[in-house]
Amino acid sequence: MEVVAAGQGVDAGKRRERAGGRVARRELRSHGAEGLGRPYIVRNIPTYDILSEENLVRIEQAADRILAEIGIEFRDDPATLDHWRRAGASIDGALVKFEPGMLREILRSAPTAFTQHARNPENSVLIGGKSVVFSPAYGSPFVMDLDRGRRYGTMEDFRNFVKLAQSSPWLHHSGGTICEPVDVPVNKRHLDMVYAHIRYSDRGFMGSVTAESRAEDSVDMARIVFGESFVDENCVILGNVNVNSPLVWDATMTTALRAYARANQAAVIVPFILGGAMGPVTNAGAIAQSLAETMAGCALTQLERPGAPVVFGNFLSSMSLKSGSPTFGTPEPAIGSMVVGQLARRLNLPLRCSGNFTTSKLPDAHAMNEGTMSMLAAVHCGANFILHSAGFLDGLLSMSYEKFVMDADFCGALHTYLDGVKVDDNQLALDAFLEVGPGNHFFGCSHTIQNYETAFWGSEIADNEPFEKWEAAGSEDAATRANRRWKQALAEYQPPPLDAAIDDALKDFIARKKASMADAWY
Amino acid sequence: MEVVAAGQGVDAGKRRERAGGRVARRELRSHGAEGLGRPYIVRNIPTYDILSEENLVRIEQAADRILAEIGIEFRDDPATLDHWRRAGASIDGALVKFEPGMLREILRSAPTAFTQHARNPENSVLIGGKSVVFSPAYGSPFVMDLDRGRRYGTMEDFRNFVKLAQSSPWLHHSGGTICEPVDVPVNKRHLDMVYAHIRYSDRGFMGSVTAESRAEDSVDMARIVFGESFVDENCVILGNVNVNSPLVWDATMTTALRAYARANQAAVIVPFILGGAMGPVTNAGAIAQSLAETMAGCALTQLERPGAPVVFGNFLSSMSLKSGSPTFGTPEPAIGSMVVGQLARRLNLPLRCSGNFTTSKLPDAHAMNEGTMSMLAAVHCGANFILHSAGFLDGLLSMSYEKFVMDADFCGALHTYLDGVKVDDNQLALDAFLEVGPGNHFFGCSHTIQNYETAFWGSEIADNEPFEKWEAAGSEDAATRANRRWKQALAEYQPPPLDAAIDDALKDFIARKKASMADAWY
Repeated sequence: MEVVAAGQGVDAGKRRERAGGRVARRELRSHGAEGLGRPYIVRNIPTYDILSEENLVRIEQAADRILAEIGIEFRDDPATLDHWRRAGASIDGALVKFEPGMLREILRSAPTAFTQHARNPENSVLIGGKSVVFSPAYGSPFVMDLDRGRRYGTMEDFRNFVKLAQSSPWLHHSGGTICEPVDVPVNKRHLDMVYAHIRYSDRGFMGSVTAESRAEDSVDMARIVFGESFVDENCVILGNVNVNSPLVWDATMTTALRAYARANQAAVIVPFILGGAMGPVTNAGAIAQSLAETMAGCALTQLERPGAPVVFGNFLSSMSLKSGSPTFGTPEPAIGSMVVGQLARRLNLPLRCSGNFTTSKLPDAHAMNEGTMSMLAAVHCGANFILHSAGFLDGLLSMSYEKFVMDADFCGALHTYLDGVKVDDNQLALDAFLEVGPGNHFFGCSHTIQNYETAFWGSEIADNEPFEKWEAAGSEDAATRANRRWKQALAEYQPPPLDAAIDDALKDFIARKKASMADAWY
Repeated sequence: MEVVAAGQGVDAGKRRERAGGRVARRELRSHGAEGLGRPYIVRNIPTYDILSEENLVRIEQAADRILAEIGIEFRDDPATLDHWRRAGASIDGALVKFEPGMLREILRSAPTAFTQHARNPENSVLIGGKSVVFSPAYGSPFVMDLDRGRRYGTMEDFRNFVKLAQSSPWLHHSGGTICEPVDVPVNKRHLDMVYAHIRYSDRGFMGSVTAESRAEDSVDMARIVFGESFVDENCVILGNVNVNSPLVWDATMTTALRAYARANQAAVIVPFILGGAMGPVTNAGAIAQSLAETMAGCALTQLERPGAPVVFGNFLSSMSLKSGSPTFGTPEPAIGSMVVGQLARRLNLPLRCSGNFTTSKLPDAHAMNEGTMSMLAAVHCGANFILHSAGFLDGLLSMSYEKFVMDADFCGALHTYLDGVKVDDNQLALDAFLEVGPGNHFFGCSHTIQNYETAFWGSEIADNEPFEKWEAAGSEDAATRANRRWKQALAEYQPPPLDAAIDDALKDFIARKKASMADAWY
């Protein structure tokens, strides 16, 4: 099997990345969305810390009591129970209890930050520290657009969203299960999904977690691209594993988690807590539960392979207690995210939060009100990896083409936002005030001419024209503009180059795997 | 002239307010928007401070240099120049220059916080400290709704918006020029606007600033409601005065400003800076300019009447440097607001920021994306008085009925958001975990039953139903729901009681004033 000398390529790429970040940034600013994106954001504003040390400690103590007095069930995975036994946990059947401090001690081997390498080294991302990485939404069975409405997702939709993400300079990652391609058998679709990420994008991506073998297949495909020894030493693929909240880890998730850790790849550990259903209706309790569940999952990766990269994830939301429907993008999880961020930093772990949440069934005012609040919460709380940054509608059930390009555009605005307020002589502009003086305008002054190319974020979705001009052009709403925008992006999409030998090896791997299994549709 | 014994009434009201806050809050939570609002928010989360002390000082020094080396023109108002002369400023024609530190010294007499009394004492609001007061949008010549589109505002529209604000438990203030009622002569409309605020609302409001005499008329009408001596000792009306940025104060604004200060009422001092036009294209420079202009205006109130309440305002926005169109709701002013907040607190002055900004011409995704980001910036930066909290569309040109109720709903969500994350035994819910245990749901557990009435914000605009149910109900977007909502609110509106003698006195005042003037239409 022919593989690229990935180690060399990535090292060279990392040098280009560092130099290229500034160049790309400059190009980006002057060309708007047509330029190349920087590979990820390095935030220039602090995190928004809302809770006192004293109250953080109380939440940590509550998590410790949940772990010690109630415990977490690890079902149907003897190897996981063996890990816990050797680590000194108390085990009763599937129920595992942890002495306070035990998980924190295990977690000391986890890296504070790590690089996820992309096959184009210029797109490798740092996950941790001050980095912010935007990744598309994940896991919807349905897709939507204004022309065809809501329908089950297909492999064609999946490829389209990979292409749309790749086309956007404001997303940094190709994501994972962008939508479920229901036209491919359940036991084979992970092969086509991983291939689509590799073939149609040259950014980082996520593999399958729906079975241990599928996680291993995902890592094997990454090995074809990056080389076995490189993968053993570097993170090239993520796996997003969910806790069966409350306080249960099932074997599907723990075996997938361990498959990623074993390969030195990063599991992202995500409790899924809708307050009132899988957790209490009070925010502090849901956060304590999330902390307990996440610490246990993160620690398990370190027992499988000490030093393996791992990401502290969370997914808090609420429920309508009238109808029992889940709600997304509401104020409680938004403000709760700030506390989750503080807790993750106290563990020195990279943080994953969720982005642009909403229950809206259309890319309308409701969608962007909830989506914007939750996305801002994710960036304020210090999340390093933001899943669901683009496309999310319908309470996690539908991936929307129009919302995808709206959200990607907002990710662009957040590049400017997270750059903060720079203070230097040029930014303070005293020369401009001396030149212009009271009562005159700045439009043609030297300072404006010198700075206008880099001044002010320009949206592709917002319409800033005067009313009359907008009306004469057809009185379009944002969704209609977004509909045109995604079609244009798909029409203009160019696939990134992929070594033909790697492509052949991937196709061969997939063909052999598919031939070895009968189709399973559930 | 018969007046209420306002002093007594307000004192009694303040006691009710303190006790009633908790009661109203409880009622609010359990009844949703049907309950009574608390009179204002007391934030339970810290402000979001993004800039270092060192960089704040650099911005202050830049403002000091603007004031000392370039100066500010105060045009056509000899009394203002006399104030500055007596205070020791350097004067050359209309141009006034200030030694560093001089304005800060003058500002020491301004209160850090003050109460704006409402005619219903339960609706009096604190402006300053940890308080957050939501007030409707201000100043649009046009109004819009989905049925009739965009048209010039009328007195009927104005009354409608006063009624909609009064109907919402999530707004705290009746606002000022909610829309321009262009069917009333320019020189008389202030009388009808102030009357509408008093008659159809019992919350705080803002008076006219478009001429000194109109400012005085506004205060005189407040005197009829509250009594002369009460008004002389307490703030009952605000006046929102704009700087003619860059670095010019005209006589219309300085005479109005002084009229409010002279009456011991609060001027809100607001530079209007679109970067690239009335200020530099760089954020730090625009902020330094804003600080210089605001300090001068605030200081002038203290020269007119030391100790008069005054509000540190700001209005930063950007321009499209391609088209020259103003832009609103963009990331630069949003993040810049955090710095403005830090600077206002260093002056110990109450802060006004702008809320729900956008250039969108429809209540669509574009509107709520920009609006939500700018509104969150206003609450994060610590603004005490947030103008433009509801209704803003079309870059300050149109007041939208649908957007008004959407924004008011979002103000409701922000009540929950600003309440932060409480940490106590009930919130931490350990008993619930002990009761429920791993793998079970919390829906019927004791903790959920005890807390569900106060758990989770419930929006009136969001649709959280499953897709199929939403589709069967007509597949409505948020704007359509909002259209129904404002019509329902107007149909159900009940005017608050107003003493007939006061009403007669107001009508008599207006009739006499109107009879004294010929109609002016420009």
